[in-house]
Amino acid sequence: MRMFDIIAKKRDKEELTGEEIAFWIQGCLNGQVADYQTTALLMAIRINGFSERETIALTEEMRRSGKTLDLSEIDGVKADKHSSGGVGDKTSLAALPIVAAAGVKVAKLSGRGLGHTGGTVDKLESIPGFHVNLDSQTFMRQVAETGMAISGQSADLDPADKKLYALRDVTATVDSIPLIAASIMSKKLATGADVLALDVKYGSGALLQDIEDSRRLAKLMIRLAKAAGKKASALLTSMEQPLGLSIGNALEVEEAVQVLQGEGPEDLRQLSLRLAGEILWLAGARSDRRQAWALAGDLLDSGAALEKFKALILAQGGCVDWQRMAKSPLILPYPAPAEGYVAAMDTAKIGYASLLLGAGRAKAEDTVDHAAGIVLCQKRGAYVHAGDTLAYLHCREERQAAEAAKLLQEAVTFSQTAPETGPLIAEIISTEDDCTD
Amino acid sequence: MRMFDIIAKKRDKEELTGEEIAFWIQGCLNGQVADYQTTALLMAIRINGFSERETIALTEEMRRSGKTLDLSEIDGVKADKHSSGGVGDKTSLAALPIVAAAGVKVAKLSGRGLGHTGGTVDKLESIPGFHVNLDSQTFMRQVAETGMAISGQSADLDPADKKLYALRDVTATVDSIPLIAASIMSKKLATGADVLALDVKYGSGALLQDIEDSRRLAKLMIRLAKAAGKKASALLTSMEQPLGLSIGNALEVEEAVQVLQGEGPEDLRQLSLRLAGEILWLAGARSDRRQAWALAGDLLDSGAALEKFKALILAQGGCVDWQRMAKSPLILPYPAPAEGYVAAMDTAKIGYASLLLGAGRAKAEDTVDHAAGIVLCQKRGAYVHAGDTLAYLHCREERQAAEAAKLLQEAVTFSQTAPETGPLIAEIISTEDDCTD
Repeated sequence: MRMFDIIAKKRDKEELTGEEIAFWIQGCLNGQVADYQTTALLMAIRINGFSERETIALTEEMRRSGKTLDLSEIDGVKADKHSSGGVGDKTSLAALPIVAAAGVKVAKLSGRGLGHTGGTVDKLESIPGFHVNLDSQTFMRQVAETGMAISGQSADLDPADKKLYALRDVTATVDSIPLIAASIMSKKLATGADVLALDVKYGSGALLQDIEDSRRLAKLMIRLAKAAGKKASALLTSMEQPLGLSIGNALEVEEAVQVLQGEGPEDLRQLSLRLAGEILWLAGARSDRRQAWALAGDLLDSGAALEKFKALILAQGGCVDWQRMAKSPLILPYPAPAEGYVAAMDTAKIGYASLLLGAGRAKAEDTVDHAAGIVLCQKRGAYVHAGDTLAYLHCREERQAAEAAKLLQEAVTFSQTAPETGPLIAEIISTEDDCTD
Repeated sequence: MRMFDIIAKKRDKEELTGEEIAFWIQGCLNGQVADYQTTALLMAIRINGFSERETIALTEEMRRSGKTLDLSEIDGVKADKHSSGGVGDKTSLAALPIVAAAGVKVAKLSGRGLGHTGGTVDKLESIPGFHVNLDSQTFMRQVAETGMAISGQSADLDPADKKLYALRDVTATVDSIPLIAASIMSKKLATGADVLALDVKYGSGALLQDIEDSRRLAKLMIRLAKAAGKKASALLTSMEQPLGLSIGNALEVEEAVQVLQGEGPEDLRQLSLRLAGEILWLAGARSDRRQAWALAGDLLDSGAALEKFKALILAQGGCVDWQRMAKSPLILPYPAPAEGYVAAMDTAKIGYASLLLGAGRAKAEDTVDHAAGIVLCQKRGAYVHAGDTLAYLHCREERQAAEAAKLLQEAVTFSQTAPETGPLIAEIISTEDDCTD
């Protein structure tokens, strides 16, 4: 087998076999296939496409490229959740304690934020004392004993994904739906949960802005889950504006806690409940889907979910006295520059504004200011007068606020008529429903 | 400017600007653009195409990537010739002395053979004493004084082509017509001749087997020549069977000498005369095209061209006593395995058979046996009986002949009806005719 022939096949729109995909991925990692051959193939895949069969084979090959977790030795159903990334998306913090409160084990590996999107690991690190790097033994023990663990990904999980992603990132081949699906699902399958909730975002703050692209990605990931024998549901959700009101690590933890306390913004509460409810249904906590959704609401309202979140924090060395969360020295109002309805939000730009305040990373090696970020006062559809406070900017220096304000001015547009706003959850696609095309 | 954005543009089928192409090529050579980025772009070009404007810009950027020759200080019209590569193609040796005999200066840089195709430099090196590596000063002086020089390419000519070709060769992106055209023309323009004959092959022994692909390549190269202010003609010629009867370095020199002596195979004589005639017309030796063609015949028949070939050889240190050319210890007949018409020849396979006899190179670093090769006794359309000698195999060891015979058996097919054979020269496309699409 020669890499040349594999590239030529995809160049000519032919389907690759599982053996060819295995040859490529193994060669890419052991150096027998040069990076300049991998990128030529990636571009051919990006332009000419990749079949579902090819994507299943790639996902499996990537999954087994490194260490995998064997959760089977832990009793009960194990659940995991993934978001395709957004701005203000703290649903893992609010939804997963609900799941764990029902006795479904939560075993989640998370990433850090990059660019305009946040990451669960950064958010948890804003809790004083919280350890995010659990070795696999500690992680497994905590899942078994506390019923919930969230850790950063170990370096030896899915090395093929790290390698391919780094090459895609510099060759304009990130936005391939099959490659995105294989990247996400190979990591999720390597973690080994039985049940999976996928939050696939669309809109101005999402990786794939077009809802049809996001739907294709969601369906493909669900079929990959099914091929791997897993139960999974994908929620197609709006990132046409930030989720909730808070953006920034400590600010988002506080908002998640509000939801767990029965307060907080309605959109965040709704989406967290639905994600938790789907997992509970897939895990068999209730055989009826609506009853599973209702169970999620009960566990939130009873305070059981908040107790589970506190148990998670204590298990990972964190402090549950929210007063001790980091606070920014400056909290500056951002006034509305015009009168009218808040019509559209360029959500990615709002995410970058938060990055400029210190809450995010431009490059992977940057550090974040856990206290920094944005708290919105108004969202799409609100009517505001010029000078009304649209948001508060949390930061260390006025210079940061000035830069962020400039971006916010571009990001938020106003109109004289109320904008149409779509539903927060556009669709649910599940392995348990008909998920064929 | 970022290479990422350049790749993304071509991925999305947009046209690159000249500045972007310059940024790519310069970065590719100075290391600012990674090879894995170049190959992603090459694949996007291979699949999505490259406009004529882009190809002109790439050709120019490649041309000036290294040292160029300035032939303008030499009096008179300077001519060059290029073949897209074939089997048994020794027309440079027969045609160019005709051109030089008319007083048109010949300044040709040539390459070595690789795979099934031969190279002029190897052929000339089979002449005892012949030096193929002239420094540019010696080369220029010989063009001025002898009227003709043929040298190997110096390493510092068109380094961009060397770099891109090496990457295309391992990423299945060689067969892109714009990239082939830019590769050939950037080298030819770097040499600086005023007049250019291009022999573009089609058929089973050619780089591009399909005649329509070859026609597109020929037209594109002619338009590149025109854009660079050069006069050029491209001959679209058949490589459905080897040219002439001899394949292999010394054997081909001997056959070229036969043509220059007024003998030799008719197809080789015809094509050599037409290539020389076109150059003479473009160079203004005769204002009427047919008169220029006739002049080529006169110079051949008078022996003037043979004298010029001998002058070239003597100028470059070679010996003109043909008896001293290397001879193979074994000359073995290859008998026809069946009775019938010689119907089809897989010409590339015949080239590989010659390679197995020692005449060619599988890899660039291999050495060649100058004496080795094949002399055909019959070509397409001949009627043979089983056991008739189809060819003689020149080699050092019987093992080589056995391997070559196996390939020849696959390469030559027989039929009970006479095969149709197309014209040797299918078309001539010239900057001096209408060469638009």
